[in-house]
Amino acid sequence: MSRSSEQSPVGGFRARLHTIIFEADTPAGKAFDVALMWAILFSVIAVMLESVAPVRERHGTALSIAEWAFTAIFATEYVLRLVAVRRPLDYARSFFGLVDLLAILPSFLSVLFPGAQTLLVVRVLRLLRVFRVLKLGHLLGQAEILMTALRASRGKITVFLGFVLTVVVIMGSVMYLVEGEAHGFDSIPRAMYWAVVTMTTVGFGDITPKTIPGQFIASVLMIMGYGILAVPTGIVSVELAAAARGPVDTQACPGCGNQGHDLDARFCKSCGSVLDWTPPKPPPTP
Amino acid sequence: MSRSSEQSPVGGFRARLHTIIFEADTPAGKAFDVALMWAILFSVIAVMLESVAPVRERHGTALSIAEWAFTAIFATEYVLRLVAVRRPLDYARSFFGLVDLLAILPSFLSVLFPGAQTLLVVRVLRLLRVFRVLKLGHLLGQAEILMTALRASRGKITVFLGFVLTVVVIMGSVMYLVEGEAHGFDSIPRAMYWAVVTMTTVGFGDITPKTIPGQFIASVLMIMGYGILAVPTGIVSVELAAAARGPVDTQACPGCGNQGHDLDARFCKSCGSVLDWTPPKPPPTP
Amino acid sequence: MSRSSEQSPVGGFRARLHTIIFEADTPAGKAFDVALMWAILFSVIAVMLESVAPVRERHGTALSIAEWAFTAIFATEYVLRLVAVRRPLDYARSFFGLVDLLAILPSFLSVLFPGAQTLLVVRVLRLLRVFRVLKLGHLLGQAEILMTALRASRGKITVFLGFVLTVVVIMGSVMYLVEGEAHGFDSIPRAMYWAVVTMTTVGFGDITPKTIPGQFIASVLMIMGYGILAVPTGIVSVELAAAARGPVDTQACPGCGNQGHDLDARFCKSCGSVLDWTPPKPPPTP
Amino acid sequence: MSRSSEQSPVGGFRARLHTIIFEADTPAGKAFDVALMWAILFSVIAVMLESVAPVRERHGTALSIAEWAFTAIFATEYVLRLVAVRRPLDYARSFFGLVDLLAILPSFLSVLFPGAQTLLVVRVLRLLRVFRVLKLGHLLGQAEILMTALRASRGKITVFLGFVLTVVVIMGSVMYLVEGEAHGFDSIPRAMYWAVVTMTTVGFGDITPKTIPGQFIASVLMIMGYGILAVPTGIVSVELAAAARGPVDTQACPGCGNQGHDLDARFCKSCGSVLDWTPPKPPPTP
Repeated sequence: MSRSSEQSPVGGFRARLHTIIFEADTPAGKAFDVALMWAILFSVIAVMLESVAPVRERHGTALSIAEWAFTAIFATEYVLRLVAVRRPLDYARSFFGLVDLLAILPSFLSVLFPGAQTLLVVRVLRLLRVFRVLKLGHLLGQAEILMTALRASRGKITVFLGFVLTVVVIMGSVMYLVEGEAHGFDSIPRAMYWAVVTMTTVGFGDITPKTIPGQFIASVLMIMGYGILAVPTGIVSVELAAAARGPVDTQACPGCGNQGHDLDARFCKSCGSVLDWTPPKPPPTP
Repeated sequence: MSRSSEQSPVGGFRARLHTIIFEADTPAGKAFDVALMWAILFSVIAVMLESVAPVRERHGTALSIAEWAFTAIFATEYVLRLVAVRRPLDYARSFFGLVDLLAILPSFLSVLFPGAQTLLVVRVLRLLRVFRVLKLGHLLGQAEILMTALRASRGKITVFLGFVLTVVVIMGSVMYLVEGEAHGFDSIPRAMYWAVVTMTTVGFGDITPKTIPGQFIASVLMIMGYGILAVPTGIVSVELAAAARGPVDTQACPGCGNQGHDLDARFCKSCGSVLDWTPPKPPPTP
Repeated sequence: MSRSSEQSPVGGFRARLHTIIFEADTPAGKAFDVALMWAILFSVIAVMLESVAPVRERHGTALSIAEWAFTAIFATEYVLRLVAVRRPLDYARSFFGLVDLLAILPSFLSVLFPGAQTLLVVRVLRLLRVFRVLKLGHLLGQAEILMTALRASRGKITVFLGFVLTVVVIMGSVMYLVEGEAHGFDSIPRAMYWAVVTMTTVGFGDITPKTIPGQFIASVLMIMGYGILAVPTGIVSVELAAAARGPVDTQACPGCGNQGHDLDARFCKSCGSVLDWTPPKPPPTP
Repeated sequence: MSRSSEQSPVGGFRARLHTIIFEADTPAGKAFDVALMWAILFSVIAVMLESVAPVRERHGTALSIAEWAFTAIFATEYVLRLVAVRRPLDYARSFFGLVDLLAILPSFLSVLFPGAQTLLVVRVLRLLRVFRVLKLGHLLGQAEILMTALRASRGKITVFLGFVLTVVVIMGSVMYLVEGEAHGFDSIPRAMYWAVVTMTTVGFGDITPKTIPGQFIASVLMIMGYGILAVPTGIVSVELAAAARGPVDTQACPGCGNQGHDLDARFCKSCGSVLDWTPPKPPPTP
């Protein structure tokens, strides 16, 4: 608590620790990140293997040793992170701080509540830690473009999802009425589950219409779902194209400072000043 | 009848009622809409729960009380709407007027025809009332763009659906011939249902080809369906891009005739002439 | 034979017949087309109903009367078409001439070979005749754009299909090796059928991998198929956008006659002549 | 070894051999390629037929004769290729050199290890040889555009796949917890297989959720997968559009600096200056 309120710059040891743990510019920082990434991946694979009954029976001891080793590594890392940051409490309450804590808690809790399956699964959330370690420059840029496109599509996608859910509720109710409990549509929620399975073209086949009108309505729903798939795709395509064009608009008008001019504009579209035009650089050779 | 023909402006009480019920600009109007939206959602959830046998058996009384409470709310609202509008008959015969009536009718009818499952399902149509309440500004704008794109694609989508249906009829008949009744393809309509299931890539698996030629024809149909999915997607993408660009291309420069200026451009980007500019309206604040 | 070689203009009666049967500009021609379309649709529905066992048993006589009525109508129409055209043999050997013949043959053949199921299915091909009757102006334009886009994509789609088939052959062989006959993969062709079912995301579930390596390979194939779907969609989107832009390039250079200039070009890109530039007309209001 | 180091030009006979085997410009070279293509296709079909039990039992001898005939053809071809190239060792170690060797090895190995199913499947890899023979000019150009688009999308697709895999791991673990072994989700890897089957909208139906929470989570996953499909499609669409436009934007007008000229433009479309023009090479004739 007292440490979290102190505003002084971080000292020599903690500064170096911060550079290694939180940054990836130095060789030490990079090595730390790579080592941590492998530890995360192996620990997640160990959790998966533990869920396979024959593996658990044969290699149970080895897996629990590995589990404690990973817990020790992640716990040490968690303490070092707390030491390295200026405001440990802020870190501990941040999203990744909680994920880091969740990575070590289950092993300690499993001593108190042995064999709880839930704890096993919580450990899989360690995978999320990969995203904090991952600092691959150009991929981040690509992810940024994708996120921009998705964020710009948010409104349209909300409208789209609202439409899909309305169709699911109404079609589910109709099929519950038409097919009835005898054919597996034994409640509206279950019929809605079937409508989602059908409309998204997944088609498990665990529940299927048996009557002629039911199969006809299902056909309509399938063709709708097949065609409707075009809508989010179109939305994302258009927004991705816009996001990819985005970085073009970097030229500011010398007269009014306005931006967002087209590539071939020679006069500012706001004040009419001549734009300080230089031929754009050739695209970088890969 | 007499009221619907009178053209006089709506009086004080009815005017205030109209503002609250039909508009969302005032705090009271907004509060009314939000309350109504929750009532609709809860009543639809109640209908869904009623269809689940164990829930119905245990909480049947509570659900039927809730049902009557919702019916009372919606009935009151229906009467208030009739009072608030200038031409009640026009309202009653409009699409949303009918939906509003359908929201309360089933409960009253269920007294006459107890236990009719159909009435249960009709009540789900209350969900449609959400769309009349929903007046979220920016979402409506997005929905408008989507609708414009879909309307512009109507011709191409009709051609596409006609092609899909022709393939379904012919492929269904061929599979009926090839696989026959022994493998579940016991009539052309059922084989057409299978063709829809296959071509839309849903693939329930309730009916599947068993013979070698049947599986070969099915493979061709699947690859066709997989590739054909590209067509509506491409259509909607192109129309969405056009709809998003839509309001831009209408203004030609008086100096050089150049087009393609942005909506907010005041000077021609090619020759610097002043464009015959009128400020675009600000987008509606949500 | 002799009639097909005569080159004289068609006489009065035959000319009027031709106008009615082959054209849709006059009221009589339009009425003929609409009547024929309904006859086709009803005859196809009759064929479908005939394949449903209970309907066939109960209404068999009515259906066979309807069938002979439709055959009489189509046979009369076929003869009239032969009379109306200048070169009957050319018509009889054309695609639609054969389709028209196929529409009437099965009924006559069924007298010789009673009950042949194949003949039933051939009658469904009558549906193709709808396309010769259908002369809905604006839809044809839309179909034209779609066909242009698909034709332009032909090369890329061939490459894409070649890739898909190669993956299907290799993945099918690998799964035949990994899963073996015990799990339903009892030959390479059947394993290839499974690979198509999986890669196109249809997923019937009639054959599924049971072993861990099999499920892993299937997962890779599914994600590939899921991602690969993007390729034809992208191809068609781009070509549709180009096809929609298509009619823009109508301006020919006054100097060299070259076409294909950009909308904003002021000089011919081939010979440098000043283009006879007039501001493009506003888009037609729908 | 000694031959691979000699740098002298290839002699008369070997030069002619090289032209026939490796090139497709001469009639002899073209005939060789076409013959080889058919040999490859027939040999792959023979391998497929051999895997079908009834065919193998009835036509086993014929198939093994065919197999040895194809092996003889491909072995001769392999030796001729070794002779024709200047550096045989480099050829033998190249990708297609290894594929060529794999095409003949299994038959010889099957003498030592009779009946090994694996060898059968390795022979299917002969199909890859089609790609070395295939030198269809315009298709290669189309494949080039597709490859350019996919290569440009690599970064975004990696991000996308990383996201999909994370969702698969976490959703698989949650479903393992929620549904448990009783409903087929008997380990995290198997639940992940189910998550892939569901998210890619394949939906085999061999494992399906049975509980209400399981079906709810599955519905969310399906709608996610359905919507997420939009992302790779959008990516590829945008990159294909860029790749199709690609070769255009590199030339700036020496007079006004304008860019965006078509590949065949000789004069600037804005100011009419002569572009520093070199005629583009004619596309390869197929």
